[in-house]
Amino acid sequence: MNMKLLDTYSGFAIDFSRMNISAAALNNLKDKFASAMREMAALEAGAIKNPDENRKVTHFTDRAAYRTAPLFEEVESFARKIRSGELRGATGKRFDAVVVNGIGGSALGPQLLQFALNGPYWNEWSAAQRKNGLKIYFLDNTDSSGIRDLVAVMDPERTLHLAISKSGGTQETRNNMLVLEAFYRSRNLDFGGFSCAVTMPGSELDRYAGEHRFLKTFPMAESIGGRTSETAIVGHVPAALTGIDFRMFLEGACRMDAWTRNNDYRSNPAAMLAGMWYLAGNGKGDRNMVIVPYSDRLVLLSRYLQQLVMESLGKELDLDGNVVHQGLNVFGNKGGTDAHAFIQQLNDGRDDFFATFIEVLQDAAYLPVADGPSMGDYLHGFLHGLAAALSGKKRPVIIIQIATVSPANLGALIALYERAVAIYAELIHINAFHQPGVQAYKLAAKGTLAVREQLFAKLANRPVSGTAAELAAQAGLEDKISDVAGWLDRAALNPAAYRVERKYNAEAADWVYIVR
Amino acid sequence: MNMKLLDTYSGFAIDFSRMNISAAALNNLKDKFASAMREMAALEAGAIKNPDENRKVTHFTDRAAYRTAPLFEEVESFARKIRSGELRGATGKRFDAVVVNGIGGSALGPQLLQFALNGPYWNEWSAAQRKNGLKIYFLDNTDSSGIRDLVAVMDPERTLHLAISKSGGTQETRNNMLVLEAFYRSRNLDFGGFSCAVTMPGSELDRYAGEHRFLKTFPMAESIGGRTSETAIVGHVPAALTGIDFRMFLEGACRMDAWTRNNDYRSNPAAMLAGMWYLAGNGKGDRNMVIVPYSDRLVLLSRYLQQLVMESLGKELDLDGNVVHQGLNVFGNKGGTDAHAFIQQLNDGRDDFFATFIEVLQDAAYLPVADGPSMGDYLHGFLHGLAAALSGKKRPVIIIQIATVSPANLGALIALYERAVAIYAELIHINAFHQPGVQAYKLAAKGTLAVREQLFAKLANRPVSGTAAELAAQAGLEDKISDVAGWLDRAALNPAAYRVERKYNAEAADWVYIVR
Repeated sequence: MNMKLLDTYSGFAIDFSRMNISAAALNNLKDKFASAMREMAALEAGAIKNPDENRKVTHFTDRAAYRTAPLFEEVESFARKIRSGELRGATGKRFDAVVVNGIGGSALGPQLLQFALNGPYWNEWSAAQRKNGLKIYFLDNTDSSGIRDLVAVMDPERTLHLAISKSGGTQETRNNMLVLEAFYRSRNLDFGGFSCAVTMPGSELDRYAGEHRFLKTFPMAESIGGRTSETAIVGHVPAALTGIDFRMFLEGACRMDAWTRNNDYRSNPAAMLAGMWYLAGNGKGDRNMVIVPYSDRLVLLSRYLQQLVMESLGKELDLDGNVVHQGLNVFGNKGGTDAHAFIQQLNDGRDDFFATFIEVLQDAAYLPVADGPSMGDYLHGFLHGLAAALSGKKRPVIIIQIATVSPANLGALIALYERAVAIYAELIHINAFHQPGVQAYKLAAKGTLAVREQLFAKLANRPVSGTAAELAAQAGLEDKISDVAGWLDRAALNPAAYRVERKYNAEAADWVYIVR
Repeated sequence: MNMKLLDTYSGFAIDFSRMNISAAALNNLKDKFASAMREMAALEAGAIKNPDENRKVTHFTDRAAYRTAPLFEEVESFARKIRSGELRGATGKRFDAVVVNGIGGSALGPQLLQFALNGPYWNEWSAAQRKNGLKIYFLDNTDSSGIRDLVAVMDPERTLHLAISKSGGTQETRNNMLVLEAFYRSRNLDFGGFSCAVTMPGSELDRYAGEHRFLKTFPMAESIGGRTSETAIVGHVPAALTGIDFRMFLEGACRMDAWTRNNDYRSNPAAMLAGMWYLAGNGKGDRNMVIVPYSDRLVLLSRYLQQLVMESLGKELDLDGNVVHQGLNVFGNKGGTDAHAFIQQLNDGRDDFFATFIEVLQDAAYLPVADGPSMGDYLHGFLHGLAAALSGKKRPVIIIQIATVSPANLGALIALYERAVAIYAELIHINAFHQPGVQAYKLAAKGTLAVREQLFAKLANRPVSGTAAELAAQAGLEDKISDVAGWLDRAALNPAAYRVERKYNAEAADWVYIVR
């Protein structure tokens, strides 16, 4: 059995020979593989593959059609007009930067492509170096420091704001948008005249964009989940605005899709990858997946895959409702750098992982070191030296090779992992396309915010003072003392927002708060 | 027993109450704690605590003395002269940027401080915004794309090069330095006149710096390992050049040192932290450590701790030579963002981790969202909502609170984790201060590079063609076919460096190479 699969056209290669997994072990899975491939075919034919949300899953198929869809050209045309200055902000100035406001699936993919293809110093390039591609910033949290840091470098009249939220109600994205809108208003600028959006038609964001007369709102399909939306419009709009060749990115993804539709698992790299994960981790994720691209430009790949894999596979229930607590941990950074950090543990410590190395065969530049091997030779030597060292200890390694960090190869990498995740989900019989834990967490967060509201509403006779326990009792929150303490601590350190002080009472060994 | 420890002066708090670990369980470790504290005292008194390398371990003690050492003032003075323009590059221009060339322990700490304290867009600030602090770039690999990306934005005559290598022989750092030296030479610029270094006196780098008349070479202590060098000169020089208050950083670290020298584990946060790790992971690291700072500025903390923890604790042998394969996996990114990514798995999936949340109590700015809670309120709500959701499922959580992302609090965080790692190493009876796996890997990499040399030296009668197996045989490398194939693939894709082509032979299902 061939443990090294290769696409001779693109040079994309994946080598499983160091996984210590036999052809026989894989063959034992052949019925599972066959069933998984049937399910994948059904998925691509339009079956409901996300039963909880009663929806289809179309990211594998939509991207092929998207290449020739009118919407594709609409995005390209919008980006062209922005970059050429034909389409300008509300005060008539040419756009020079875009702020991508989105979180999770609306951020990690655009960040990955931006860093990989435009590099770490893109925003320091001149407009000529950027060929009028926009500088790019990301707001992917509800942290006031993100806004403060942005505002310190942002020229409001030359900045395009792109809000991305499928549901249109994502709290963090909404927060950033409303805060930016207020910022623009305070400068007598019409925020909508500098804004565009990607969201599902009819969503809250869609309505907001309409009311505020955004320059443009692009529609997002309901059947494409956030973490698999990079090959859809979510990836396209930021990419086009910075001049990334999104068509080639899609070509690479579609080429990988064609390869990984192969029903013979032995020549299907996604099926083989899923099978390796399954066998390495006993079908339960007992080994962590360590992702180490030997490439500065691919440093965000592990973070991207962390979301794709863990959000898809980390599930409590299987499709029959049994409690299974599945998952597959993903972490990593980049090689050879990591060899001077955590790889000490991979070499010598816990045998609880399999490593995936990604090699970029073609150097960005030929840089000989004195008269010896080149920079790239050393990088190659370090990768294969480490692979040999790990193999010598029977620690499993997968090696993926790509020719260059190109749009097509990024598309291929993403499509490979998307399908491996979907097949692995079939092998372990779970729904890879929902995220019930995220919903549960959102509810819990609402509960915590409700404590804040109740606390300060109920402490009416101010000033009032006491420990967290005492004030909680006064506010009818006796069962929420820890939450109350959290809000009081926060309030004490944010005088602009709250009128709370705290002093430590050494005798009681507790804070005493004064709420004014 | 108090599961929440607090420094009322700084507001630094750490809450273990959600770890589901009882006072009785901790008390069972009291002899181990006592022994660990004795060992820590011996370490600080100058005992040989790294027996393999027969050296002392002085990072806990040296930083206190360093604050008033002449070397401290020497670094500050050097940085002042660079920033004021008193000290200039070889062509008389004022320095505007520094390139920090170092890897692992010589990079992750400076990167953490830079991003946390100067923010993500520092290099886009004007010199006035930076108060003449230098822009900063990092070379932390032997990837030609790192150099290419740097050169695209670098003004050679206004850039200071800082090489950091304790041993002075780190290959990646050496490579970058030699390549940059050649780049400067090609422009008739004297590289040494734009360079400074941090290294052990007498090292290869020290000699190189002397020969090339570097502007300055700072000495590095032999007794401070790379991954614990951020509070020493390795951290100081980059920090001073960008205007970070390193003295306050040291004050924070020393204050934490004083706190964590407490022999009563119950009021020593480092001992408690180490005990929690130990009990949560059965003394074998059975639970992954997930680090989630709720702060955009602290996004690199998980990467820093990943090195500190995994390189220190991931060991094959204990101090008595028994095979133990120890370790403690660390990963993470930032909250609330991660709640839209991998935290689905933490909520619902494998119960194989403990989470550590780091909260920054004071907002960077007061930004109300419309008329409701502020950005920071939401962030606080998300953190405590997630903590509640996880606790509800008995998934263990530690919550650390700091008032602000300040130099002192970063010093405290680093000092806390450094000591927790050292104490944990005592609990599991390993050497936390060596890295034998990294040495083994370096040897393996040399072996791989030797294959390259032999391959191309032995293929003398060119042109010669064949499969990797055939060419390996001709070069006397029959037992290294995989390595040979790797070098040939690389060579085929790097025409500037090699004269190798490859064509796929479909019949043989193999590449055929022509070496010219």
